Amino acid sequence: MKKVLIAYRLKPEGLTAFNENYEITLPKDKSYFTKEEILELIPEYEVFVPNFSFYTDKEIMDRGTKLELISNFGVGFNNIDVEYATQKGIAVTNIPNTTTEPTAEFAFALLLGAARRVGYYDRKLRTPEGVSWGVYSESGLSVYGKTLGIIGMGRIGQSLARRAVASGMHIIYNNRNRLAESIENQYNARYVSKEELLKTADYISLNAPSTPETYHLIGEKEFNMMKPTAIFINTARGDLVDEKAMAKALKDGRIWAAGLDVYDNEPHILPELLVLDNVLLAPHAGTKTVEDRIAMSEEMVQNIVGFYEGTYPVSRVN
Amino acid sequence: MKKVLIAYRLKPEGLTAFNENYEITLPKDKSYFTKEEILELIPEYEVFVPNFSFYTDKEIMDRGTKLELISNFGVGFNNIDVEYATQKGIAVTNIPNTTTEPTAEFAFALLLGAARRVGYYDRKLRTPEGVSWGVYSESGLSVYGKTLGIIGMGRIGQSLARRAVASGMHIIYNNRNRLAESIENQYNARYVSKEELLKTADYISLNAPSTPETYHLIGEKEFNMMKPTAIFINTARGDLVDEKAMAKALKDGRIWAAGLDVYDNEPHILPELLVLDNVLLAPHAGTKTVEDRIAMSEEMVQNIVGFYEGTYPVSRVN
Repeated sequence: MKKVLIAYRLKPEGLTAFNENYEITLPKDKSYFTKEEILELIPEYEVFVPNFSFYTDKEIMDRGTKLELISNFGVGFNNIDVEYATQKGIAVTNIPNTTTEPTAEFAFALLLGAARRVGYYDRKLRTPEGVSWGVYSESGLSVYGKTLGIIGMGRIGQSLARRAVASGMHIIYNNRNRLAESIENQYNARYVSKEELLKTADYISLNAPSTPETYHLIGEKEFNMMKPTAIFINTARGDLVDEKAMAKALKDGRIWAAGLDVYDNEPHILPELLVLDNVLLAPHAGTKTVEDRIAMSEEMVQNIVGFYEGTYPVSRVN
Repeated sequence: MKKVLIAYRLKPEGLTAFNENYEITLPKDKSYFTKEEILELIPEYEVFVPNFSFYTDKEIMDRGTKLELISNFGVGFNNIDVEYATQKGIAVTNIPNTTTEPTAEFAFALLLGAARRVGYYDRKLRTPEGVSWGVYSESGLSVYGKTLGIIGMGRIGQSLARRAVASGMHIIYNNRNRLAESIENQYNARYVSKEELLKTADYISLNAPSTPETYHLIGEKEFNMMKPTAIFINTARGDLVDEKAMAKALKDGRIWAAGLDVYDNEPHILPELLVLDNVLLAPHAGTKTVEDRIAMSEEMVQNIVGFYEGTYPVSRVN
């Protein structure tokens, strides 16, 4: 019998892969356990499904003396001190399969929405001043025929590229490693330096993981390289971007617009961003659909059951 | 020399195809001429580029005794009494080429935006109450893997289908005439009755023209046929829908959401719609980008020059 502590109140529909070998604890009367509650509960558990609102750090792992597995409910795992887990012999898993399509879908929703001013129109039409219905006033920018620069051309980046190509976009990308030519050809994608991407793309989407190497990958210098008509999309992680520099670039019109799903200090959003009309804001909702969250639960549970019983493939990150 | 009266203040960048054979009048100090101004000016002109905010009716055409051509600045021409123009021997043209991609792009922006609650999140995050960042709370619906029913599978419908297929959607459609199999195969699209479409589609998009046959094509009966999770998109024309019935279906949760760009009485939007959280509203912005409006102007001018000089193809509607 393995005891599993799940930080979130996940729906039972997504937990059906558990069998009688597992005893599950999850919050009953609220959305998630706090760090204090986790610290109190963790000593009894072999498996932990951690939060995103606080870091699963040394303290939690040291208290969790029975811990064997941390099964993350997400593809990004910057909410876990993986290095320390590895030192302690604790396995860490993530869920890359069920998160790919919804995240790329949401990135494209933000790209189209920021370009075509979907959020702005909806918001303004509900106010007394409304929106002008004139031919050119309060216009958006078109997407068709434009160049999308993707930084981080993994599964999600490629899934976004597939959508963008069908919408008439040209793809350039930057990645740690250049992709195989056969993959590039699928999207007619051209590998370029980060600098060339920033200078020539009409749309720039971050789809890279949060790592020490990607911390503040985009700051004042990078925003200054972009076209004044550039539209910047971040559905990856907030710490890839210097938020103060981004807010300034948007406020000063150094770039044309942004679509943002992630922030440096979630759920806190910089007050400067909240008042800008050229930014489309979302609450880390890249995978936030009922169907996708259930599918993600299934994948997360299968990582646990697969880890112990070998009955499912397991996505290990350490 | 032909005198051309343009109801809108279009940018000169889109009017370069005119040559010395044309004398152009457009509003100098405001966005568009009123009907009264048009009635006063029209007797002098051979060519008229009409408004969308009022109908180009018998009165205008009877006063325009020199009129030879009405060159519409849009693909839909329900703003013109085409039958009367035909009777009077006045040619009418429209612009189907430059309007296709932007309109399909915007329809897809509204589809993704309504499903993934892009407008709702952006609006709520800017208010003091904000949005919950929990796993399931205030979730959207996913698009990937779902069925899109397209009513009106012409150029715009097909352009929308191309985007939807790349986003993992399955396509069913209803149209006056079934398309050639070769076109159906491009989108793996299945021709179905209107009733089957309404009952089985997860997303329903109107892409048909406004004609006497399509007036109130979707009303209470049709909304009652839809799934409770259906998302309804209208970027065609407002009079295809019984708006009161739609507002009620949305308010009662008979359908899940709507994305609307067009209304029965533009620029007026039903007050009932303005207060609903499950509707994404836009101000007839299907082609509203700087680049697209310039390209549309070019196509519209080429219809005029082509009509008189044969130097461009002309899209006649009568």
